[in-house]
Amino acid sequence: MCSGQEKGFCVTNHPIISLDAMGGDDAPEIVIQGAELALRQYPRMKLVLVGDEQRLKKALGQTAFARSIDIIHADDMVMPEDKPSQALRNGKNTSMWQAIKLVADKQADAVVSAGNTGALMAMSKLQLRMMEGVTRPAIAGFFPTISGSGCMLDMGANIECNEDNLVQFAIMGSAFVRSVLNREQPTIGLLNVGAEEQKGFDYLRVAAQILSSDKLGLNYAGFVEGSDIGNGTVDVVVTDGFTGNVALKTAEGIADLFQHSLKTSFSQTLLSKLAYLAARPQLRRVRSLLDPRAHNGAVLLGLNGISVKSHGGTDGFGFANAIHVAVEMIEHGFMPEVSQTIAEANPILEQEKGKGDE
Amino acid sequence: MCSGQEKGFCVTNHPIISLDAMGGDDAPEIVIQGAELALRQYPRMKLVLVGDEQRLKKALGQTAFARSIDIIHADDMVMPEDKPSQALRNGKNTSMWQAIKLVADKQADAVVSAGNTGALMAMSKLQLRMMEGVTRPAIAGFFPTISGSGCMLDMGANIECNEDNLVQFAIMGSAFVRSVLNREQPTIGLLNVGAEEQKGFDYLRVAAQILSSDKLGLNYAGFVEGSDIGNGTVDVVVTDGFTGNVALKTAEGIADLFQHSLKTSFSQTLLSKLAYLAARPQLRRVRSLLDPRAHNGAVLLGLNGISVKSHGGTDGFGFANAIHVAVEMIEHGFMPEVSQTIAEANPILEQEKGKGDE
Repeated sequence: MCSGQEKGFCVTNHPIISLDAMGGDDAPEIVIQGAELALRQYPRMKLVLVGDEQRLKKALGQTAFARSIDIIHADDMVMPEDKPSQALRNGKNTSMWQAIKLVADKQADAVVSAGNTGALMAMSKLQLRMMEGVTRPAIAGFFPTISGSGCMLDMGANIECNEDNLVQFAIMGSAFVRSVLNREQPTIGLLNVGAEEQKGFDYLRVAAQILSSDKLGLNYAGFVEGSDIGNGTVDVVVTDGFTGNVALKTAEGIADLFQHSLKTSFSQTLLSKLAYLAARPQLRRVRSLLDPRAHNGAVLLGLNGISVKSHGGTDGFGFANAIHVAVEMIEHGFMPEVSQTIAEANPILEQEKGKGDE
Repeated sequence: MCSGQEKGFCVTNHPIISLDAMGGDDAPEIVIQGAELALRQYPRMKLVLVGDEQRLKKALGQTAFARSIDIIHADDMVMPEDKPSQALRNGKNTSMWQAIKLVADKQADAVVSAGNTGALMAMSKLQLRMMEGVTRPAIAGFFPTISGSGCMLDMGANIECNEDNLVQFAIMGSAFVRSVLNREQPTIGLLNVGAEEQKGFDYLRVAAQILSSDKLGLNYAGFVEGSDIGNGTVDVVVTDGFTGNVALKTAEGIADLFQHSLKTSFSQTLLSKLAYLAARPQLRRVRSLLDPRAHNGAVLLGLNGISVKSHGGTDGFGFANAIHVAVEMIEHGFMPEVSQTIAEANPILEQEKGKGDE
């Protein structure tokens, strides 16, 4: 059941999710595979594939899930190399635009796309518009940690942020983790170059001071450092989009480095290949724990609708996880919760900022 | 032989390195162990231990290396929790201050300390002073990559940087990698949130334009992203101290996460413990490839002297590696090279900036 339907946040009492069927390196195949995997887990939802109707019909075939999947035709598609401005100008007939439009027109509760990130952000912002009271939208996503998984935002929507933006990111990130990871009072950390109060930029210190206020009701844990991301020290890591993007990609690069080193090391000699056979279950376990596909699904928070970005290079399993994120947000009432929290927090934010100026 | 001696850059024709014997979690033991390991590799150098004379004499004992090691007494030591300003005010009798002083007084070619980073930076800047023409010093360090190892700067000396700073970091980083990693024409990348020209902050685009100039003679490879750090796409990653610090610590955290996952995975059942025995040589190989101790030794570049920071939690092996970095810089003439390059580059930098303004 969709929580929030009574307040007009859900289209029906079952989630309806529109999928940009043509976005992603291996679209539409991975989108269809992902749709089927997701439907196996949530048979009660409805999926709408937006894209080349003939191709989609052929690929979908006579699967058992065909009647839970609608197809809407779109002539065109956004290309990976398109600039956001280009996509906005010429993109009205693309599968991405049309998939987002279903959410804007209240015919779907969320959109999922593995296509061009910049275009998805620009089209989502334009069609869904900013949520009342939100100063900047932010991209939030998950990553693996020693304690399970954590969330970071902003991962690249805004390269520069001020204290207001960061405080709102904390509020939105907290609601996001509550929805998707089912953690009641997520802990929040502000990414900095040291845990000491005097470290970093002025706007970080002001944001820290506001976040510490009891009135906001957030579980603020203080400054965190880069190493706290992997350690899972907090549930939500709040930062500007430049730093968040670099941190996320640095983590991906180091994960690749590890996988590469393991592979090289276990394939050098006959003996090491035999050792691999012995250790395969354990090595696979580590790989799956740290599998980026299991943490797929970055969400553009702060808009009047749910827009989920799947990794472009993902497979069906990863795409299903991105759909999973959308379903959790819908079912746990992310939209009504975050809009209410922002409305309540903004006056407190102003008040607390005023204190700092005195 | 110390290259650069004829220009007054080296004290004698063999490297003399002063060691802050009291800095680091397990000092002075790790410093003495590191000194002995380093002397085994470079028997021709001279080391000066600065710290509690009685304790050092006792710890040093009658080792074979005792005659290559001098001891200079210092009453006091910088504590890990001391603020840089505090350390500067009250620190004249500390082992750190006295160890740096030997370099300032031209009695040593480099100083190595595993103590408080902020204090080492502040004391090094004050005593060694900025190199002529350098606008900001930067902390440079190494990290493991798929292709071996790379260098990043700034890793935390300046949280905010402009285009001039970044261009100078590129020049200093290039000379640093040439000295320590023996790469003739190191490739340089500017850390950004995308490889496209229009991405990121204005000062990044201006820096990129200057770095592209043939006149500077740098091997500039363009913008790089966080994932390029682990991939080893370039030899030198140039960034501001805030981003560099977050990226470095994020990488450390993800490395910890991997080690932790491997450990957990191989210790769950009797069978997985047996698998560990089979795979131990390969797993050890991966661990040693990615061993942070092997990449120990961050250097404060841009001063009139070499000041190397060892990781505070390192052991003797890691400390020896930090000494190794200092020796390579001395023997490959880092100081004369970087001062000459900066002097030659500054007029070109001004010229190229002018072009952008027109």
